[in-house]
Amino acid sequence: MNSCNKLKSPNVPFLGVSHLLDLLADVGVENFLLGLAEYIQQDFMRWDEFDKSPRYASHSEEGVIELMPTSDGNNFSFKYVNGHPKNTLKGLQTVTAFGVLADVDSGYPLLISEMTVLTALRTAATSALVAKYLAPANSSVLALIGNGAQSEFQALAFKALLGITQVKLFDIDRSASIKCYENLKDKGLDVEICLSAQEAIEGAHIITTCTADKCNATILTDEMVANTVHINAIGGDCPGKTELDKNLLLRGDVFVEYEPQTRIEGDIQQLDASSFVTEIHRVISGLAPGRTVAQQLTIFDGVGFAVEDFSALRFVRDLMQQSPHQQKLDLLANPKDPRNLFGLLANSQKTSLRQAS
Amino acid sequence: MNSCNKLKSPNVPFLGVSHLLDLLADVGVENFLLGLAEYIQQDFMRWDEFDKSPRYASHSEEGVIELMPTSDGNNFSFKYVNGHPKNTLKGLQTVTAFGVLADVDSGYPLLISEMTVLTALRTAATSALVAKYLAPANSSVLALIGNGAQSEFQALAFKALLGITQVKLFDIDRSASIKCYENLKDKGLDVEICLSAQEAIEGAHIITTCTADKCNATILTDEMVANTVHINAIGGDCPGKTELDKNLLLRGDVFVEYEPQTRIEGDIQQLDASSFVTEIHRVISGLAPGRTVAQQLTIFDGVGFAVEDFSALRFVRDLMQQSPHQQKLDLLANPKDPRNLFGLLANSQKTSLRQAS
Repeated sequence: MNSCNKLKSPNVPFLGVSHLLDLLADVGVENFLLGLAEYIQQDFMRWDEFDKSPRYASHSEEGVIELMPTSDGNNFSFKYVNGHPKNTLKGLQTVTAFGVLADVDSGYPLLISEMTVLTALRTAATSALVAKYLAPANSSVLALIGNGAQSEFQALAFKALLGITQVKLFDIDRSASIKCYENLKDKGLDVEICLSAQEAIEGAHIITTCTADKCNATILTDEMVANTVHINAIGGDCPGKTELDKNLLLRGDVFVEYEPQTRIEGDIQQLDASSFVTEIHRVISGLAPGRTVAQQLTIFDGVGFAVEDFSALRFVRDLMQQSPHQQKLDLLANPKDPRNLFGLLANSQKTSLRQAS
Repeated sequence: MNSCNKLKSPNVPFLGVSHLLDLLADVGVENFLLGLAEYIQQDFMRWDEFDKSPRYASHSEEGVIELMPTSDGNNFSFKYVNGHPKNTLKGLQTVTAFGVLADVDSGYPLLISEMTVLTALRTAATSALVAKYLAPANSSVLALIGNGAQSEFQALAFKALLGITQVKLFDIDRSASIKCYENLKDKGLDVEICLSAQEAIEGAHIITTCTADKCNATILTDEMVANTVHINAIGGDCPGKTELDKNLLLRGDVFVEYEPQTRIEGDIQQLDASSFVTEIHRVISGLAPGRTVAQQLTIFDGVGFAVEDFSALRFVRDLMQQSPHQQKLDLLANPKDPRNLFGLLANSQKTSLRQAS
């Protein structure tokens, strides 16, 4: 629009879905995951610099809409994200998201980004980063229970960060496993569809559970799981939505992102609030032990935390400096005299009159 | 971009600054304010349907960044807004904002809108709507103390909703008053610049205080104000930022938007938490008295509440149905099979390869 240029709005960089996909195609998915995991690791190592709070959640019968803010004193970020398990029946995503990175000193937004795809990437990068500290040495076999929208990202992150070579798939909906198989078969991984969760976890060093039902499910029972594996449980992420047998949680060493939020949303909502868990940033910073022996059941009760989204926005913002894949949004009013916001209306009316004549 | 169309993203309507200005030019500012006030009134009358919470505020030395969410069970909205008093020194706005309206059933965003200008409009519409219930009968003279970015919007809202004919301006910075005068002089109002707050409020039926300093200021002292006026105090809106003499608050009848938030942010942060205030929605719904006699000092301690932003987003969304002034954002990933989010990457890579060949 003409008036847009005339008013000299300070445009805000926007990374849409197609921009992010083009950026991913340029960089390569595995490289992207490696870079993103590095940013998350950096931010986990300076955990105390962040303002942290459990997310704001607006629950309805159909699902939840959440706002996830955080700040390190220099930048503020938040993510808008929904979780609506029945959306797939309408051809919609269970989870969609977008996020904003802003400058704390001025309060001005620096970036608006799609985060549906970016959340899948940051969740996978976080899972694999955590597993570097918790999974058995030389892990090569990954079981993926739940083969929905997150599954391929998980597989590639574990390949890129841990050198996983074999992926065993199981989903109660076989077509989901077939979809996942087709997407992964030419990615340098040995991929196999299994007929049961039990079959999938046989021989696996790492088990990812990532199922979507909003209920207290038991994807893994206590008897099924050996005392030597790492469980990456990322599907239990809101009140009333869990995946693991309570006895598994009692038997294993449980690691979380931010304890106050995970107590509300994670699989550990099944446990007493006094149960012992370790925040993973302490392991990454060397303040707490991760896996210490081969005979150890480790469980990452991942729910997704705002700092990871902060890292993801920071990462794409840095990548965007060199990338043409973006557009500018006319989001901020910018009158020449900041106190003369009203003057913009007069300019616009003049513009319209000129256009009409 | 090509890939954008190919991927058939469900685009989200975007109302940028220039779109809103063009919409305002089409509708007319006073008509816009009248329509917006009606939407706010409707939503205040169904107050109990809304999820309400004090806003999320991230404070820094320079200012504050806030998220203001609410929901009526059908729609969810939030506003991102900053408050940085020193921004004007850098040529930036003290307050910038944008907002989102979403569908509760799917969690999908329905609209992203600039809200810097829209917040000025909704604040003015709220002030004037409230004054319809609290100002003296046949009020015609408005004093405007503080002639910054909000002032002209306030004047036009009081003209449109209450039939104000005369506006008396005062600001410690005379250039702000001159700016305001120039903007209002041809708007059908008798406008006058005064040399003191005292001079400005002489003969005024309604006094709007709207100053920007982040401190406990005393714009109006107890002695200055007659027992027959309505004070519209909208500049005291965060902890440590107040405008009115405590004794004025003790003398007058105080009305607020949402008590828990105003206790934290409003001028009544100077009072005991047990001091009597009336939520204005109760007056608008006929559940509580507003002004009952001529000899009554009424004070609206306005801080801005999420429901007003919800109303504003709802209003512009309805206006946009008939308006060409908008664009679509490629914000939401939309794979054909919702579980096949990863499939988007393959499509994009193919697109890039095609473009490269």
